[in-house]
Amino acid sequence: MAAAMAAHALRFETVRSNPQHTDTNASALDFPSASGEIKMTAAVFSTENSAPPQIHYLFHQYRTTGRKPRTELWHVHHFWQLELILDGCGGELAAETEVLPFNSGDIFLIPSGIRHVFHYPDRRCKWLSVKFSVEPQCRTGAQRFSLNEILEPARTILLHLLNAGRLPDRQEVHLINAVLMIFVNYHLSHGSDCSQPESTFVSRISGYVLSREGKYISVDDVARFIGYSPKYTSNRFRREAGLPLKTFLDRQRYEHAVRRLCFTSDSISTIAAALGFSDTYAFSRFFKHAAGKSPSQFRESYLHSM
Amino acid sequence: MAAAMAAHALRFETVRSNPQHTDTNASALDFPSASGEIKMTAAVFSTENSAPPQIHYLFHQYRTTGRKPRTELWHVHHFWQLELILDGCGGELAAETEVLPFNSGDIFLIPSGIRHVFHYPDRRCKWLSVKFSVEPQCRTGAQRFSLNEILEPARTILLHLLNAGRLPDRQEVHLINAVLMIFVNYHLSHGSDCSQPESTFVSRISGYVLSREGKYISVDDVARFIGYSPKYTSNRFRREAGLPLKTFLDRQRYEHAVRRLCFTSDSISTIAAALGFSDTYAFSRFFKHAAGKSPSQFRESYLHSM
Repeated sequence: MAAAMAAHALRFETVRSNPQHTDTNASALDFPSASGEIKMTAAVFSTENSAPPQIHYLFHQYRTTGRKPRTELWHVHHFWQLELILDGCGGELAAETEVLPFNSGDIFLIPSGIRHVFHYPDRRCKWLSVKFSVEPQCRTGAQRFSLNEILEPARTILLHLLNAGRLPDRQEVHLINAVLMIFVNYHLSHGSDCSQPESTFVSRISGYVLSREGKYISVDDVARFIGYSPKYTSNRFRREAGLPLKTFLDRQRYEHAVRRLCFTSDSISTIAAALGFSDTYAFSRFFKHAAGKSPSQFRESYLHSM
Repeated sequence: MAAAMAAHALRFETVRSNPQHTDTNASALDFPSASGEIKMTAAVFSTENSAPPQIHYLFHQYRTTGRKPRTELWHVHHFWQLELILDGCGGELAAETEVLPFNSGDIFLIPSGIRHVFHYPDRRCKWLSVKFSVEPQCRTGAQRFSLNEILEPARTILLHLLNAGRLPDRQEVHLINAVLMIFVNYHLSHGSDCSQPESTFVSRISGYVLSREGKYISVDDVARFIGYSPKYTSNRFRREAGLPLKTFLDRQRYEHAVRRLCFTSDSISTIAAALGFSDTYAFSRFFKHAAGKSPSQFRESYLHSM
């Protein structure tokens, strides 16, 4: 379960003998050693399953129903299918045991392996069908979406890139893959059963700590938030997350400090204030204990590692 | 150079003893053997460097200039930086040896390792700064973009996802990464010097063949298109691409047939007509020679491999 803690963790590389060495698989969070020169390679919101899905556009078609109803047979395929309903209404998608009626503006995502059939009534209907592959596969159901602040612009980009008269060129395919990734990620984050199982207890605490953006949080604060006694909260957190709650809280605060030091030009005193320290000396003491060097030395060595 | 041909190539997996085997690195195009059961895993527009860049959101900040001019120092960092100019104008970005003035609506992408500095004159200016990492690194320059059909919707999604008051949660980060990928891919396809070196001769022919979408093309047609004699065209193509031009043309046509068989529900006669065959018999003969089975058998075995 300790790996789950990497969810909101920064990733460090401690450079010693070989400055070229990059352990891209590193996910455990360690306080960097004071003896090694610190080079931050990437600070990521990594998840246990952090690699994004690989998307490959395969084929697209603009389709219309004629005057007669369009009859399809139930079918299933390896590729994923995105349907953008561009015009007309009154049709429906049957997918496994569900029936989803649609109107103009609706979007369907049909993942790999879903048995489905589209029914178009005897009316003019126009839609764009995009076929693509997703690796690694994960088992999710078909979903219908309506246009919103994310899907509408994504749809705009896709319609701009997918010419009705020809296949996209290589550079367009790269852009199309990126847009398809928005649809897939949106699908995975909205009602898909594909998300990784995670301890609600740990993830709720983790989310709470993240929302505080580096400000001081005591074990008692966490206990109050989660609704258990401080002792029970500490013990259960250590059991499920694999590290003491106090250590986790300190690391999160330290990581937030590192993000601000490395990715902003905020002054040390601004950062100290944002993190809720009474003054820069208190911040420096805290930081030095964790990093083995002062905030300004840390920033300096990060900038000089370029 | 043969690998360059995979640019518009389908990828097959020929399943023999172990149906679980997946060679995800396969890029060479082979006509599937008539003896093996054919299972198409993914048909991709793979490039020599086909893995998409890995994007990791790191940090974002909404910034404003006050009443006084904002003075920065020249600096350089490992992470990439995306600046969306939201309000105000009259500032400029100096990056390496270039100076790029900006106005509201402009977008800057500053890749890793670019020495740069923003100058804000004594006027109110508002911008969003997003820091993220891109793996693998590639050497490109800073670029300024103006809003267009792709960047404007991408910007809309990003502004929707990046809350001014808090850090994004894990699911938002996945979506943000996908949007950042649009910016990076757009950058890489517009004036970046990071694109792979490729034979213009081969890629021009490849683009021409792709644009014909499976219709018949003779060596003479290609020679006329490229402006050389058929003999010189054939010889140079074989030398640079690593396979005879006639073989390449047949494969491209075959691949297009496979795409239509596997990813559409078009009838065999519709596909034959779209590919410019005089009738379904001519198409079947051509296809059987390449695949070892008829178009309908091929479709059948693809659908049954589910």
